[in-house]
Amino acid sequence: MKTQTTNFTPGPSQLFYTVADHMRIAFREGIPSLSHRSKRAETIYKDIVEGLSELLDLPPSYHIFFTGSATEIWERIIQNLVRKNSFHLVNGSFSKRFYEVANQLHKVADKAEVLPGQGFSENITLPPDTELMAITHNETSTGVAIPLELIHKIKESAPQTLIAVDAVSSLPFPAFDYTKIDSAFFSVQKGFGLPAGLGVWMVNEACLQKAGQLLAEGASIGSYHSLPSLRDNAVKNQTPETPNLLGMYLLSKVIADMNRIGIKRIRSETEYKAAILYQVLENHNMLQPFVRDKRLQSKTVIVADTGEHTGKLTKRLLDLGLQPGAGYGPGKNSQLRFANFPTHSRENFEHLVDCLSTY
Amino acid sequence: MKTQTTNFTPGPSQLFYTVADHMRIAFREGIPSLSHRSKRAETIYKDIVEGLSELLDLPPSYHIFFTGSATEIWERIIQNLVRKNSFHLVNGSFSKRFYEVANQLHKVADKAEVLPGQGFSENITLPPDTELMAITHNETSTGVAIPLELIHKIKESAPQTLIAVDAVSSLPFPAFDYTKIDSAFFSVQKGFGLPAGLGVWMVNEACLQKAGQLLAEGASIGSYHSLPSLRDNAVKNQTPETPNLLGMYLLSKVIADMNRIGIKRIRSETEYKAAILYQVLENHNMLQPFVRDKRLQSKTVIVADTGEHTGKLTKRLLDLGLQPGAGYGPGKNSQLRFANFPTHSRENFEHLVDCLSTY
Repeated sequence: MKTQTTNFTPGPSQLFYTVADHMRIAFREGIPSLSHRSKRAETIYKDIVEGLSELLDLPPSYHIFFTGSATEIWERIIQNLVRKNSFHLVNGSFSKRFYEVANQLHKVADKAEVLPGQGFSENITLPPDTELMAITHNETSTGVAIPLELIHKIKESAPQTLIAVDAVSSLPFPAFDYTKIDSAFFSVQKGFGLPAGLGVWMVNEACLQKAGQLLAEGASIGSYHSLPSLRDNAVKNQTPETPNLLGMYLLSKVIADMNRIGIKRIRSETEYKAAILYQVLENHNMLQPFVRDKRLQSKTVIVADTGEHTGKLTKRLLDLGLQPGAGYGPGKNSQLRFANFPTHSRENFEHLVDCLSTY
Repeated sequence: MKTQTTNFTPGPSQLFYTVADHMRIAFREGIPSLSHRSKRAETIYKDIVEGLSELLDLPPSYHIFFTGSATEIWERIIQNLVRKNSFHLVNGSFSKRFYEVANQLHKVADKAEVLPGQGFSENITLPPDTELMAITHNETSTGVAIPLELIHKIKESAPQTLIAVDAVSSLPFPAFDYTKIDSAFFSVQKGFGLPAGLGVWMVNEACLQKAGQLLAEGASIGSYHSLPSLRDNAVKNQTPETPNLLGMYLLSKVIADMNRIGIKRIRSETEYKAAILYQVLENHNMLQPFVRDKRLQSKTVIVADTGEHTGKLTKRLLDLGLQPGAGYGPGKNSQLRFANFPTHSRENFEHLVDCLSTY
């Protein structure tokens, strides 16, 4: 493998540029065999909570829990927040899988479904008994991002419904108003640029109340990773199980690095990098953005229709040290995906854009 | 932290001595951001299956799956292998938690319970409808290991019952006869000496059949980590979710290292190290083994009754570069625990034994 290659795959992605250094220090300091019941481990948990609250501007009432993956969080959300009825916005492979999890857990799952690459109208009517609305902010499979205004408006029209936002491939970029959603989650191998194996689940008090209510009614909401179990341990800055503490340590360090850079700068650079990539695709003779509606174009996962050029273009980019992500599912042979995460520098994107424009 | 300290805590434990090197190579080879759908990732999965099958002498019909933790496996076992009735051998904190998971998942859980530090009689009578028998081979909290003959005998008396063995803090040491149990599992931060964040679940065909049966009957057996979902991915050497692939890579390398050493030598050295530690405890004026019955004394987690000497002895050992594990739960202030894992050398144990004998 060329060490100079920049990895644009949307996940697992290029490591955040400080991770190798943090890993070296972790070994020097004994983090890989640190007890998860030690004071030092509690400090790592606390550093993440404080750092992430600053980075994302979380309200103080939010709780932060850890799982093995974001896939696990789909299951925990359905288990802990739905007695019977969930409702899902489905516009691609990942939002569909979230919906399927609700079915597998025997809930009555309803959905509004549009074709991959499309978004949703502003007037989504929820069935009256909807307990949970599941929204995939950023469809990693197609590069559609649901506008924040739409997400924030749902709470106004359905204040009794819990809003859970899958932000796996968008955070830390989107500036969610966390007072208008009840839960958001991500996995660390995308925007945070870390090795996979850790999911981060953020919930407000309403979620904890709902889980407590289901438990009191006699429902089974799981065991070690039920919300009450996660909360009872989190108040001590601990986890129910022996967690991926090395991953948590690296996350705490990358969050601190991102806070030093500043979320404002991370967001403006993300906007800039997305703008120049979409521009070259718009103006290209042979390529174009898969998502045509500018309001729906993801800033963090940019999907190009590359058609018959897919193979040749991939080879060209690889020769130039640029690893594009393959298209997902039906787009496998006709699209390329480009992650635009905080670890990707402006120079990386300017190089990518140059290479595409001269293709 | 002193870099020369040998860590005898029973988990997370001292790293296997090759792990730091493997981690360096992993970064050099791009493993931390490797796609879990790549050929290289499939090779890592395959290496673990082949290596672990050799190390543990698994029958070819066994399947190997990955979870976030062994704690998760408790839940998945109950979800996938129990319609209604499970039966648990309880003799300490961890076997008790396995039992509690069954209750939390609304099964009818029964148990044979003895005091911490004790074992079970040879004539365990299972209730006639027992679908699953849950056995904690090695109680990490007390240092009791259930004799293999007892475990193997259960299958003979109850051939229709699935036997699941929690071997979290004993593998790879015990030479289970896998034709007489149906499932075994461990987490990587103990005997395998790896950073925490990965559980390894081994099951035979009978387990897969049971899960398929429950699913066909309309039971909910979970979503991404149900046995059918794990199996459907494992046949492609893949996982349902983005896994802790870096942890899997390190595991594949440590298993290969252990196969080079040879399981026979690992087992005989474990026996030797346990023997000299138990001997010094038996002969000591102020210390003694917590588990008095030699047939029940764990070879991999050795618990010493240290009474009023606990604090002073801990300090003495730390001064000499030896980090003992604290007692667990009620034994917190009156016991010390010593892990005897493959990474601990004979020299480490001889040093420990010298220090104890001159106390």
